[in-house]
Amino acid sequence: MKNYLDCFPCFLKQALRIGRIATEDEGKIKKLLDEVGMMFKDIPAENTPPESGMIIHQKVREIIGNHDPYREIKDETTQRALSMYHSLKKQVENSDDRLLTAIRVSVAGNVMDFGVTRDFDLEKDVAQILAMDFALFDYSEFVNCLDQADHVLFIGDNAGECVFDRILIEEMNKPAVYVVRDIPVINDATYDDAVQAGIDRVATIMSSGTKAPGTVLKTCSGEFRTLFSNSGFIISKGQGNYEGLSDEKKPIFFLLKAKCHVIADDIGVEEGDIILKGINVKRNPDENP
Amino acid sequence: MKNYLDCFPCFLKQALRIGRIATEDEGKIKKLLDEVGMMFKDIPAENTPPESGMIIHQKVREIIGNHDPYREIKDETTQRALSMYHSLKKQVENSDDRLLTAIRVSVAGNVMDFGVTRDFDLEKDVAQILAMDFALFDYSEFVNCLDQADHVLFIGDNAGECVFDRILIEEMNKPAVYVVRDIPVINDATYDDAVQAGIDRVATIMSSGTKAPGTVLKTCSGEFRTLFSNSGFIISKGQGNYEGLSDEKKPIFFLLKAKCHVIADDIGVEEGDIILKGINVKRNPDENP
Repeated sequence: MKNYLDCFPCFLKQALRIGRIATEDEGKIKKLLDEVGMMFKDIPAENTPPESGMIIHQKVREIIGNHDPYREIKDETTQRALSMYHSLKKQVENSDDRLLTAIRVSVAGNVMDFGVTRDFDLEKDVAQILAMDFALFDYSEFVNCLDQADHVLFIGDNAGECVFDRILIEEMNKPAVYVVRDIPVINDATYDDAVQAGIDRVATIMSSGTKAPGTVLKTCSGEFRTLFSNSGFIISKGQGNYEGLSDEKKPIFFLLKAKCHVIADDIGVEEGDIILKGINVKRNPDENP
Repeated sequence: MKNYLDCFPCFLKQALRIGRIATEDEGKIKKLLDEVGMMFKDIPAENTPPESGMIIHQKVREIIGNHDPYREIKDETTQRALSMYHSLKKQVENSDDRLLTAIRVSVAGNVMDFGVTRDFDLEKDVAQILAMDFALFDYSEFVNCLDQADHVLFIGDNAGECVFDRILIEEMNKPAVYVVRDIPVINDATYDDAVQAGIDRVATIMSSGTKAPGTVLKTCSGEFRTLFSNSGFIISKGQGNYEGLSDEKKPIFFLLKAKCHVIADDIGVEEGDIILKGINVKRNPDENP
């Protein structure tokens, strides 16, 4: 998905949020906004948002002099998510369709996104999403594709969310590679965050090599690109990965909450909707006429 | 009120909204965002938002080559507001406290603000506000101050809203000067908009001389500043005027809906609240302990 013009004010808001987390020096934050504002002219409209985010966040790190301003928040979020693990596992175990409930749990975890909102109420938001209908729901395609897959390539999104993804990985019961960002960017999950969430117990953790807040293949490592092109079943969590991968030609299931109207419009749903959307996957014509 | 850092992403959003109204040429709108982004470094944090808005909107007009992109929208809004005039007048006439109901009508008109929102549902929003409680309510101070005033200086905000203000002016029944912007900026009311709304039948219409989307005295004409300093009862409608006048030393009643969290925080209320807040006015200690 290329940048929409609406993304530019949002880049500025992201920079402001990060600035406020990293420092109380308003002058420094103003400088940050000035510098980000000046970068717009060098960002082609054809970029994907995570590509643009990558160069913006590099500038943000330079100016605030902190390579991981969300460190503390990420740790806290992971701890809060871990405290919910057992009760969520119980919900999965007691449900009629365990896989579906695990998918719901994973998408509910996608609320832990500091790139979009200023705040969220984890327990409340999760409970609400667990009870919501999917606006797009390619579930039978997901089940078929999973059945035939020899492994799962699971592209994670945010720290904390990994805990919820772990529950889905456990339920899918296939060899899995869990993909994280190469360096800290916003509150996106890195290797350490995935380990904290216990992903190392259920999957191989791998960096995509990207420094962007989303999976943009040309910014990824050769190793990841090879794995990506050899994978027949890919799960992509969250908006940043959707933005980077929505035009790729592989079978990908996007699992996310549409948290801004730009993404919602691009997907064709409403802001706030949750989706399980497969691209380049075998359709079941009977079930999705 | 000085700029808050949150105003900068908002300036960019305003430019984007105006660009979209003025042209379908995405390249031109991108250039607009680039140029506005580059202006941030020249905008001191100490400016008031309307001062910053003034130089930004000048740039916007230059780039899009249209000095009044909201012309059609303003005319439409005024027509819709006029179509509600008689029923609102009836509500005032049938109410227990006509002045209070007229104040409610006037603040309800403040929803017609394209500087903040992308859209509003006029009839629904007005009905909702007419039934809302004020978060700040210096009504007895307003009544006392009005009783003693020999004239009312009424600083208008948006086109369309003028129609609703006219109802309040009619109810106050004092000589009134209704103040408008000197040139079109966003959908703020100019002389023509006030005449369309029928304000000329109930008040003298006067330009403040400002090119800003709010009343910043140092950008106003000498004539307006003299009148301002000679006025003992001033009504200031909307956010832009609040931002420009909140630190002045005259008796001013701010009548507005807090449409963004920055203004709401500055005033000490919640986003979405309506307020009637007097500054530099005689307090009634019995009624407001």
